[in-house]
Amino acid sequence: MSIELQRVAPAEIEARSMEIITEELGRELDPELAPVIKRVIHTSADFDYADNLVFSPGAVKRGVEAMKNGCTIVTDTQMALAGINKRVLGKFGGEVMNFVADPDVAEEAKRRGVTRATVSMERAAALGRPLVFAVGNSPTALVAIRDLLEAGTLEQPALIIGVPVGFVNVVESKELILELENIPYIVARGRKGGSNVAAAICNALLYLASGDARE
Amino acid sequence: MSIELQRVAPAEIEARSMEIITEELGRELDPELAPVIKRVIHTSADFDYADNLVFSPGAVKRGVEAMKNGCTIVTDTQMALAGINKRVLGKFGGEVMNFVADPDVAEEAKRRGVTRATVSMERAAALGRPLVFAVGNSPTALVAIRDLLEAGTLEQPALIIGVPVGFVNVVESKELILELENIPYIVARGRKGGSNVAAAICNALLYLASGDARE
Repeated sequence: MSIELQRVAPAEIEARSMEIITEELGRELDPELAPVIKRVIHTSADFDYADNLVFSPGAVKRGVEAMKNGCTIVTDTQMALAGINKRVLGKFGGEVMNFVADPDVAEEAKRRGVTRATVSMERAAALGRPLVFAVGNSPTALVAIRDLLEAGTLEQPALIIGVPVGFVNVVESKELILELENIPYIVARGRKGGSNVAAAICNALLYLASGDARE
Repeated sequence: MSIELQRVAPAEIEARSMEIITEELGRELDPELAPVIKRVIHTSADFDYADNLVFSPGAVKRGVEAMKNGCTIVTDTQMALAGINKRVLGKFGGEVMNFVADPDVAEEAKRRGVTRATVSMERAAALGRPLVFAVGNSPTALVAIRDLLEAGTLEQPALIIGVPVGFVNVVESKELILELENIPYIVARGRKGGSNVAAAICNALLYLASGDARE
């Protein structure tokens, strides 16, 4: 078998990928949502996300505004943190935090019989400022966010990106977020998601915020 | 709508997830490959990987041996690096390296009109020792590995994990690896893959190496 590689310059690969995604989608997406949906498909090669992603009204606009205002993004994994474009985020004065790997978070979680993600979201809430949550792994992080909102101990988030992946309570935790009123969210309905998806959504918002030519 | 969360203790979530995956697969996997395939499905909630993953003969055994011997893993993204369990890797004296974010790699790539992934793989080859490559992003990384092997400037790798994701040259780059003879590989055929998949495969091998109860 002879394998032929396409000649595409490094700087052109992403644009060509986005063209292929647009062609294969075979239908028009809502132009406000398209850059987010396409970037998630770009990061996963999984067209299911064209149907899975659910946006609260104005979620993309609110997310872009948050990025422009130099928001704090809180992730539930080191992988999501690693995947977020910190150069662009830093340009706006934003930062990204993750508490899951802190030794005292692990200790407290063990003592209380809860997940590290739960304790991490409590730590984030204690920051006392509007946050973008980027949850790509732990359904318990989404449950904790809902509980903290109900208890009144979490300030209104700028955006909840709820895209944990998996088989136990993942579907249910996302439905909890979809029930919230007046809170902007982007949720991947069903089992699919991941730290890569969470990072891709943050990056799509960052590129929109910076007027980057990338879709 | 009333959403009911299952009561599963934090420590039980992964085991329960693996049970669900086993049930839903509905067929027996090769027992040597099952822990790797199931961990990739666990990280993606995508059962396509039960069919996509291609293993050279003995690849899992060779990968586990490499982990036990304290190998150096080379990734092509910071995300894959972040996702690999460095506690278990460190227990064996292993380490994980990534050259993509180095400023002089970016500079050299730009000057030569190649990708940063290509230059990164050349840097890795220059280490002059057997490596586990964990490629979850860049098809050009796989092309570079093939070219370096043909040129005789790369030592026989312990294992090539070839799971880049995407739309331009991704399918082709993986076919190049599948053509290699006498080199252990684990490849996700087709467009799918990702840094999360690359990390999940490394972790599956690490848990097998450490006799971890996790599948």
